[in-house]
Amino acid sequence: MNLKKIVQNNQLEPYFVKGSFGIEKEGLRTDASGHLARTDHPLEFGSRNHHPYVQTDFSESQLELVTPPQDTLKEQYQWLKALHDVVNRTIPKDEFVWPFSMPNILPAEADIPLIKVDDYREVRYREKLSEKYGKKKQMISGVHYNFSFTPEFLDKINEYVQTEDNLDEWCNDLYLKMSRNYLRYQWVLTYLFGASPVSHPSLLDSETIGPVRSLRNSEYGYHNTFSDTVSYESIENYIRDIEELVKNNILYEEREYYGSSRLRGAGKYVCQLVNNGTRYVEFRSFDLNPFDPLGFSYEQSVFLHLYVLTMVWMDKDNRDEDIKEGIEKNARTSLENPYAYSQYKEEGLSLLNLMKDTSRELNLSDEYTTVVDKAIHQFHHPEETLSAVIMDKLKDRTSFIDFGNTLGKSYKQLSMQKPFLLNGFETLEMSTQLLLFDALQLGVKTTILDENDQFLAFSYKGDKEYVRNGNMTSKDTYISHWLMANKTVTKKVLKENGFAVPAGEEFSSLEEAKNYYAIASQKAVVIKPKSTNYGIGITIFKQTPKRTDYEEALSFAFKEDDSILVEEYIEGTEYRFFVLNGKVEAVLLREPANVTGDGEHSVKELIAEKNRHPYRGENHRAPLEKIKMGEIEAMMLKEQGYTFESVLPENEKVYLRENSNISTGGDSIDVTDDMHESYKSVAEDIARALDVKVTGLDLIVPDIHMPSTKANNGYTVIEANFNPAMNMHAFVQKGKGRRLSRKVLDMLYPHIELS
Amino acid sequence: MNLKKIVQNNQLEPYFVKGSFGIEKEGLRTDASGHLARTDHPLEFGSRNHHPYVQTDFSESQLELVTPPQDTLKEQYQWLKALHDVVNRTIPKDEFVWPFSMPNILPAEADIPLIKVDDYREVRYREKLSEKYGKKKQMISGVHYNFSFTPEFLDKINEYVQTEDNLDEWCNDLYLKMSRNYLRYQWVLTYLFGASPVSHPSLLDSETIGPVRSLRNSEYGYHNTFSDTVSYESIENYIRDIEELVKNNILYEEREYYGSSRLRGAGKYVCQLVNNGTRYVEFRSFDLNPFDPLGFSYEQSVFLHLYVLTMVWMDKDNRDEDIKEGIEKNARTSLENPYAYSQYKEEGLSLLNLMKDTSRELNLSDEYTTVVDKAIHQFHHPEETLSAVIMDKLKDRTSFIDFGNTLGKSYKQLSMQKPFLLNGFETLEMSTQLLLFDALQLGVKTTILDENDQFLAFSYKGDKEYVRNGNMTSKDTYISHWLMANKTVTKKVLKENGFAVPAGEEFSSLEEAKNYYAIASQKAVVIKPKSTNYGIGITIFKQTPKRTDYEEALSFAFKEDDSILVEEYIEGTEYRFFVLNGKVEAVLLREPANVTGDGEHSVKELIAEKNRHPYRGENHRAPLEKIKMGEIEAMMLKEQGYTFESVLPENEKVYLRENSNISTGGDSIDVTDDMHESYKSVAEDIARALDVKVTGLDLIVPDIHMPSTKANNGYTVIEANFNPAMNMHAFVQKGKGRRLSRKVLDMLYPHIELS
Repeated sequence: MNLKKIVQNNQLEPYFVKGSFGIEKEGLRTDASGHLARTDHPLEFGSRNHHPYVQTDFSESQLELVTPPQDTLKEQYQWLKALHDVVNRTIPKDEFVWPFSMPNILPAEADIPLIKVDDYREVRYREKLSEKYGKKKQMISGVHYNFSFTPEFLDKINEYVQTEDNLDEWCNDLYLKMSRNYLRYQWVLTYLFGASPVSHPSLLDSETIGPVRSLRNSEYGYHNTFSDTVSYESIENYIRDIEELVKNNILYEEREYYGSSRLRGAGKYVCQLVNNGTRYVEFRSFDLNPFDPLGFSYEQSVFLHLYVLTMVWMDKDNRDEDIKEGIEKNARTSLENPYAYSQYKEEGLSLLNLMKDTSRELNLSDEYTTVVDKAIHQFHHPEETLSAVIMDKLKDRTSFIDFGNTLGKSYKQLSMQKPFLLNGFETLEMSTQLLLFDALQLGVKTTILDENDQFLAFSYKGDKEYVRNGNMTSKDTYISHWLMANKTVTKKVLKENGFAVPAGEEFSSLEEAKNYYAIASQKAVVIKPKSTNYGIGITIFKQTPKRTDYEEALSFAFKEDDSILVEEYIEGTEYRFFVLNGKVEAVLLREPANVTGDGEHSVKELIAEKNRHPYRGENHRAPLEKIKMGEIEAMMLKEQGYTFESVLPENEKVYLRENSNISTGGDSIDVTDDMHESYKSVAEDIARALDVKVTGLDLIVPDIHMPSTKANNGYTVIEANFNPAMNMHAFVQKGKGRRLSRKVLDMLYPHIELS
Repeated sequence: MNLKKIVQNNQLEPYFVKGSFGIEKEGLRTDASGHLARTDHPLEFGSRNHHPYVQTDFSESQLELVTPPQDTLKEQYQWLKALHDVVNRTIPKDEFVWPFSMPNILPAEADIPLIKVDDYREVRYREKLSEKYGKKKQMISGVHYNFSFTPEFLDKINEYVQTEDNLDEWCNDLYLKMSRNYLRYQWVLTYLFGASPVSHPSLLDSETIGPVRSLRNSEYGYHNTFSDTVSYESIENYIRDIEELVKNNILYEEREYYGSSRLRGAGKYVCQLVNNGTRYVEFRSFDLNPFDPLGFSYEQSVFLHLYVLTMVWMDKDNRDEDIKEGIEKNARTSLENPYAYSQYKEEGLSLLNLMKDTSRELNLSDEYTTVVDKAIHQFHHPEETLSAVIMDKLKDRTSFIDFGNTLGKSYKQLSMQKPFLLNGFETLEMSTQLLLFDALQLGVKTTILDENDQFLAFSYKGDKEYVRNGNMTSKDTYISHWLMANKTVTKKVLKENGFAVPAGEEFSSLEEAKNYYAIASQKAVVIKPKSTNYGIGITIFKQTPKRTDYEEALSFAFKEDDSILVEEYIEGTEYRFFVLNGKVEAVLLREPANVTGDGEHSVKELIAEKNRHPYRGENHRAPLEKIKMGEIEAMMLKEQGYTFESVLPENEKVYLRENSNISTGGDSIDVTDDMHESYKSVAEDIARALDVKVTGLDLIVPDIHMPSTKANNGYTVIEANFNPAMNMHAFVQKGKGRRLSRKVLDMLYPHIELS
């Protein structure tokens, strides 16, 4: 078989260059002083028995972040970023993730904690590793890069391959060629990306080693000495050799085989590769890149993709003896001085040029050639390789810990500064980001079905659920949505169920609405389009309206909708009750944009100060919006006798807006615990009457401390909102934040495990 | 208390003129020859134990149509129309509803069937009535008109009434005054609306009676002789007198009291009026108006509304002795010759002028004054009263039956000619009309929550359900709607569940979509906007596209949506599978607009002939659309070598459209029974995978007779549609119609009774 020919003859290049990409990244939890954290893996991560994203590896303090396989490198990095946010925000405040492969300050061998999980086999396996390699060596961390071709590509190949082999065999051969060539040239990767030049003395006693390119890839690092005894010439050989190592007790289990390239099938055992074929290949030779907050840069991933493609695209195919040579060269390269030229420079350059050819032949984008060009440059400038740049930053070996502390803490800070965003997915709506964060944290398997449509698919122990816009779920009925979407219908249903709603009428003709003046003129009224949700087209008459004003307000509302409502105006304060699964989980008061004077600062300065709050942002990208200094705000000030330049007296509160919307700079104040229980009961009853699990109810309550009774209906329901915002409850200006997204998950998966 | 003063001083006129209106209309089922139908009440009406709309009165053949109380006369008539459609379409084909109060040809006394219901008390009550009045008299039918003021009016009154009486007492007094004055002047109604001048000899043996204004209101009619013994001077008197009649065995039950005005409370017994007050008043003096298909015209209802308002608005209040006078005058009026002037003409005119004053004082619309003016005219022209006009149409007394047959059959035909419309509610979408029809037929209590929004509320034995657009219900989940609304998400979910979907990609950038040409150029493709549902913006390349055509199609699709799909094109025929509650209930083939030649007629004539089909209409007001003769159709013909004037050879079928949409004149062909079961299973599995109860699945199936197996996936799912159209399955061009709306009701109420 000649893959290149099949691809070229059948124009399969567009299929060939696609792939499925995954990253596994280890990292040590570290305390503020650079020592290995000795705390337990946080409970907030749920159960490690089936957490798909955040695991522990050898030690309880050794995190492993696993991205699910993604179709593009871009998505792979979205996930990697997001998982870092999840980890950074979940581990204790004073801990961070160590940015180097070589460990932080380790305690004595005996004090390094193994993972604490229920499965005794997992613990015993690690005990055996400890005996064999010593615990400390197991603390060296790295990155695994998983790659496979797409099913579409393999289907296409299947159409064209003229062979009696089945596709699985063909596929095994393809991945074996990739592995053979990978292993032959892996030293190039170590030259470029080696990033463990030194180690803290708590790991390696000798002061004499290094600086080198990659301690981790060297004989001092984390590897099996017998790796070169495994054949990659055929799947049968590969399986035979690994099984042999286990049979002869050289390996405890197959998974102990630390070869830089491992073929992975559907099952746990290599023998399954024969029947089920290779699903993906795991490449294991990568040091953590301390200059990237994620430990492995996007550019590195691009380079690696082209690298593995080249390994199968190239005409040359290496044999087992060449692999031995490759392993040898890699070992030597890893012990080279970071600032020295590679001893295999010519071979390196020739491989990189082959990669450039491949990129051109496959019509890959510029980002691929750019990373190769950079690598070529690094072959001419060893001082620009990762290991050399690290050495530049270190004054001496002890400063390795200081540098790691500085970098690690700064990366943690990146995750902490905007707790309402999930980096990687920051273009999603905030509510969806919150929910996604909670799902990733708890280990609910998640697929982003449609990013633009805020559509997530969840799976927990096989139970599938779909969620759109953060809280649209299978637990609500189809009709309840429409029941709430139609204000007239909502009111009719609530009224019929005995709840207090404002009296009023719906009109779909201006003439009829005008005739209603006979009634409307007798009270304070609100005129609003039937189906707007953002306050547009609404006129409030707190006193009985004059006929001309009334008719003007009608026309104004009719501009927004074919139908309008004329309702009695209800005095009092409006509160948002967030009801979820039968229970009021949050009550929010929204106050119009305002500042309070201190006798010293101008309104302008007070606004600027208030806008500095980390929760305030622009265009719905933060839980609160910055207060604007526009015409409306200037008018409001003027009515109160001020300008933006006025210095406000101490404790004088001025409002800059009449409406209380968060979107125009309003404050969010959590009053969940202050609200009298009777109103919460009413809200829960309303949700039940509407047969709805998730709703945001707007109730006017004149006095939240005076109970609502049958005799004294101290409330009026103004609106029932479907898909209510969750972020404004999570991050409030004042009071306690309420993590409603987490409650959504609890509703979907009531038996979620926390252990 | 002076109601008029309270209303005028507080500008309560707009509240006073509102009301709640209901009509009960009796009518005899009649066979083709004018005899009383002897068939049973149709099973299709469900159970009479709790049918709110269609009941039987005295006899099994005596229908009673009951409109639920409505806020406006317009709505009252919508209901009355709709119920007539329901009745006319449900009773046997050769039966119709007798349009006169005086019966059709009755059988011998013994052969008149009493109602056949389970409740023995109901049967016994009618047996007693038979003994007392004779069965035949009980067959005289009429209209009851129910009226009450609105709760809003009573609430308002409550604010202003300065009295120690409670509102219920005040309310009883109000309705008593209305009744007293009503009874005093009811003869006016009999003069105007009396419509039983003659009778068939099978009821009244004597040839000497009549013609008169109203046999029914006369001593020969349906009334108690002791009606004038009930006092209306106070609620206590009223209750006392009725209870006395029962106690003395003059009445069997309270409901046997046939007074022309009856106060109705919440419960069955008059004594409850004291504690719970009057809920509405029932006026019972109306003959069926044979000139209105509904038995009582809208103008009569308008007149009556103003009449009852005047009865309380007028200063004069009558006493029991005046009521006696009124009853007397009514009896005399009913026996006047239809062409004679009223003997109380002056009193009549003075009352009508008072009604005009009332109308003006209450600022009522012109339709009120119009009906009063007409009545005044009728007092000057007795030959224009209803009874006289009837006599004009009758050559002799025997022709009464012929005339009734002609009228009754023509009214039935009004309901039969467009079986897909529900008169009264013909502005609703067709699917909602179908569902509403089925609900009214079965006796599911229905409220039109929002006509524009196609929103219905149902209640059956207390179980509430809401339905929008005919099949959006509580049985589907909120998320399933969105899952189907997003084509990419649907495909991902279906693919993950192992169903055959077309391969393809979504793009939200033109650039990326252009780059996909490398793959798209290798197959037949469809390019479509992500979220359109009507075929707009779609381009199909049945051969692999040229680059320029491909890019043009992309731009075309991007005009409709921010995201587009490029999918492989699947050959075969598309079928719509309607899945409901786990089962495929209908499979439809849609064929593009076409005609088939007969060797004689031109295309134009063939189209005209096809368009005459009663199911073909325009603008989605019929199950099928008329075939148009526009540019597109002309082009299609031209390509086939024809013009509209061409005479087509026999059996030559030409298509006038490429697309198969019903909306462009396509044919609907039911193939439910022909489709191989394996495809139905697939469709049912798909619905299960999407967790959806109601969906319209579009599957491409090349051969509906060849089974789909795992090895031979003889299908591809193209789309899953939420809220699928139901009307196109109910009324098909060819094959068997499928009443899916009824299946929706069965899903909502699985235990619906049919007895």
